[in-house]
Amino acid sequence: MNNFIYDVPTKVYFGENAVSNLHTELKNYGKKVLLCYGGGSIKKSGLYDTIIDEITKAGSEVFELSGIEPNPRIDSVREGVKICKEQNIDVLLAVGGGSTLDATKWISAGAKVEHDAWDFFSQWADVDDALPVLTVLTLSATGSEMNCGGVISNPETKDKIGRLARPLLPKASFLDPTLTYSVSKYQTACGCADIISHILEVYFAPEKDMYMLDCVMEGLLKTVIKYGEVAINDPCNYEARANLMWASTWAINTFVKAGKAHEWSCHPLEHELSAIYDITHGLGLAILTPRFLSYCLNEENVDKYVQFGINVFDIDKNLPPMEIAKLSIEKLSGFFFNTLGLQSSFTQVGINSEHFKIMAHKSCEGECINGFVKLYPEDVEKIFEMCL
Amino acid sequence: MNNFIYDVPTKVYFGENAVSNLHTELKNYGKKVLLCYGGGSIKKSGLYDTIIDEITKAGSEVFELSGIEPNPRIDSVREGVKICKEQNIDVLLAVGGGSTLDATKWISAGAKVEHDAWDFFSQWADVDDALPVLTVLTLSATGSEMNCGGVISNPETKDKIGRLARPLLPKASFLDPTLTYSVSKYQTACGCADIISHILEVYFAPEKDMYMLDCVMEGLLKTVIKYGEVAINDPCNYEARANLMWASTWAINTFVKAGKAHEWSCHPLEHELSAIYDITHGLGLAILTPRFLSYCLNEENVDKYVQFGINVFDIDKNLPPMEIAKLSIEKLSGFFFNTLGLQSSFTQVGINSEHFKIMAHKSCEGECINGFVKLYPEDVEKIFEMCL
Repeated sequence: MNNFIYDVPTKVYFGENAVSNLHTELKNYGKKVLLCYGGGSIKKSGLYDTIIDEITKAGSEVFELSGIEPNPRIDSVREGVKICKEQNIDVLLAVGGGSTLDATKWISAGAKVEHDAWDFFSQWADVDDALPVLTVLTLSATGSEMNCGGVISNPETKDKIGRLARPLLPKASFLDPTLTYSVSKYQTACGCADIISHILEVYFAPEKDMYMLDCVMEGLLKTVIKYGEVAINDPCNYEARANLMWASTWAINTFVKAGKAHEWSCHPLEHELSAIYDITHGLGLAILTPRFLSYCLNEENVDKYVQFGINVFDIDKNLPPMEIAKLSIEKLSGFFFNTLGLQSSFTQVGINSEHFKIMAHKSCEGECINGFVKLYPEDVEKIFEMCL
Repeated sequence: MNNFIYDVPTKVYFGENAVSNLHTELKNYGKKVLLCYGGGSIKKSGLYDTIIDEITKAGSEVFELSGIEPNPRIDSVREGVKICKEQNIDVLLAVGGGSTLDATKWISAGAKVEHDAWDFFSQWADVDDALPVLTVLTLSATGSEMNCGGVISNPETKDKIGRLARPLLPKASFLDPTLTYSVSKYQTACGCADIISHILEVYFAPEKDMYMLDCVMEGLLKTVIKYGEVAINDPCNYEARANLMWASTWAINTFVKAGKAHEWSCHPLEHELSAIYDITHGLGLAILTPRFLSYCLNEENVDKYVQFGINVFDIDKNLPPMEIAKLSIEKLSGFFFNTLGLQSSFTQVGINSEHFKIMAHKSCEGECINGFVKLYPEDVEKIFEMCL
C-alpha cells in the first residue's frame, strides 16, 4: 500500500436545478466569462437560456466558444485560448460532457502561457497556472468535473493524449441528473462503459490494495451495472441518472486510486483507436476491456478476478477460481454487449487490422505499458486481434 | 433523494511518515503555532519530538496547550483561546485523537470572537471565522480530521454538545496509520464502534437513499468489521490500521451522507450518557446501537435491516426478512461485545436507571428525535432500559 495525498477541493452542487447556484459561484471568479459548449444541444434543451440567465444574474459579461467536438481537438483549445487572451477572460464555464470539459480545462491553462497549447502534450510544457473553471455536466462518463485531467486530440499528428495538471481542477461543478435525461441510449451506454473502465483500470492492479477502496470500487461497479440498465430503458429515471452521475465522478477523482501508481492499460489502447478512427471513447473501451482481462488472466492473478466475480456479479464462490474468473469476464461482456447493447467487435464498427502494429507501438510509447500485467507491443497487437 | 452540496477541501497526507510533510503545510499559514495535545502520550512515543522538528523546519515559533481531556471540556477551549489572543497565534496544530482535534477546532473559532466560547453552544453564536487548523491524527474514530464538527462538554451544566461550523474544517490533516499502533485494544475497539455508529446513523434513514452510497457504506462497515478484529489481535498490522484510519475519515466527512437531513439517534443518546458518566463515547455507542436497532425494527422498515444483514454480514438471503433483521442485530452485537470485547451493558459500566428520565428528555431536547424512527422521551427511556 503506497502513501498518497488526497486533495480534491472541487465544490459540487448536486441535484435537480443545481445550476440555480451558478450565479453565486460565478461572482467569486470575476466579470468576464467564456462559455464553452459543444454542438448546440444545450440550446435545444433550454439549458443555454438557463445558463445565460445565471451569468446575467451574476452581473457578468459572456463570451462564447461553441462547437467543441467529441474527442476534442487542439484547434478548439487554440480558439478558446485566443478568445481568453483577446478579451481578458476571468473565468471559464464549461457546459457539456467530458469532451467540452476537457477542452475547457486546457483552454484555461493555455490562456496563461505564450506558447502553443499543443506544447502541453508534445513537449510536456509546464502547467503552472490556469484560469478558474466551472463546469455544468450533461453526460455521466469521464469524471472530468472533479479531476484535473483532460484528453486532447490532434488530427494532424493522429495523437490523442491525456494529461493531469493540478491547476486544471474545476473550482465548482454543477451536477443535475435531469440534464442527462436526454442523453441517447447509445451515449448512456458508452458513458457506463467509460465509468466501468475507469474503475477497472484501478481495481486490477499489480500493487497491494486497500481493502476499503476495493469495497468502494465494487460498490461503484454494482451501481453502474444496476442503473445502467435502468437508464437505458427508462431515460428519465432520476434515481438511475443520479446514481450514474455521482458514480462517474467518484470513479476517477483520485479517491479510489489512493496510492496506486501503475499505468492504465485499456485507456492508452483506446486512445490510439479513437485517434485514428474517431469512435466513441466508451465504445472502444467496452470492446477492449473484456479482451484485455482475458489476455491478462493467469494463475498468479486469478484471485483478483475471483473477488471481482463474486463481489460484483454474485458468482457462486464455490466454483473453481479459473471458472469464476472466466465467468466474470463473460458477465462483463454480457453487460456491455447485451444489457447496454453496445457493438461488440472492431469489425462491427469498421475497424480492421490495418493499423494494429503502429497503434500497438504508439500505445506502448515504444516500450511497454507497465500496468496490471506488463504489455509489450506484441501483446497489445494480440489484444487488438481478439477484438476483431 | 435530496439535493446536496459536497465541499470538503481538506488536504490529506496519508501513509507512513505523512508527518514529514507538516513543515511545508505549516509555512502556508503563518509563523506562530499553537500545538494542542492531550495527556502526554505523544511525548512517550516520540511523536512530540518529530512535531517540534517539523515546526522548527518550518521556521515557526511554537506555543503549547497540553492536557486536553477525552470528552474535551470547555475550559480547555477557553485556555486555548486565551493563548491565541495573548500570543497572536496564526495557526493551530492538533496532535491526538478526536477529542484533541475537536477542542482545537473550537479554539480556532473562539480566537476570533470576543464572547465566551461556550456561547457557541449555549447561545448558538455565529461562527463566521476561525484560525487555520492542521491535524495529526493518533486515533481512528471520530473523523474530526476531515469534517467541520466538534463536540465539547461542560461539566458545570452537564452538557455535551456537538456542532458543525464550516470555518472549523481542517486545512490539512496528516494520517499515519503507524501512529495508531500504540492505541490500546480497548481504545481501538471503542474507535471501531464509533466509526460503525457514524455509518449506521446515516445508513438507517427515513429518507430515500442513493444506492451508490449505501454500497459505499456497506463497504466501510465490512472494512471496520474485517480490520477491527485484526487490529485488536495484531496492533502493528499496517494494513488493518490503514484501513481503519481511512474508513474512519470517510464515515463522517459528509460524502456518504449526501442529502440526508434526518437527525441522528444514537449520538444524542450517548452524549447525554457521557455528559453525566464520562464513559468513552465509542463504548456508549456500542451498548446503545444494537438496542436502538432492535427497538426501531418494524414491518415497514425491515427491508433496510435485511439489506444490512445480507450485504454486510453475508446472512442467507433466503431466510424470512424478520429473521434476517434480527440476525443482523445479533451479528452487530457479536462484533461489538465478542470480537472487540467491549462491555455489553450499562450495568457492567456502573450506570443505573437513576438519570434515565432526565437524559431521555435532554436527548430529545424536550420534544423528539426526528431520526430513522421518531423517538420521544418515553422511547428513549425504553432504549436506555434495554441497555441495563
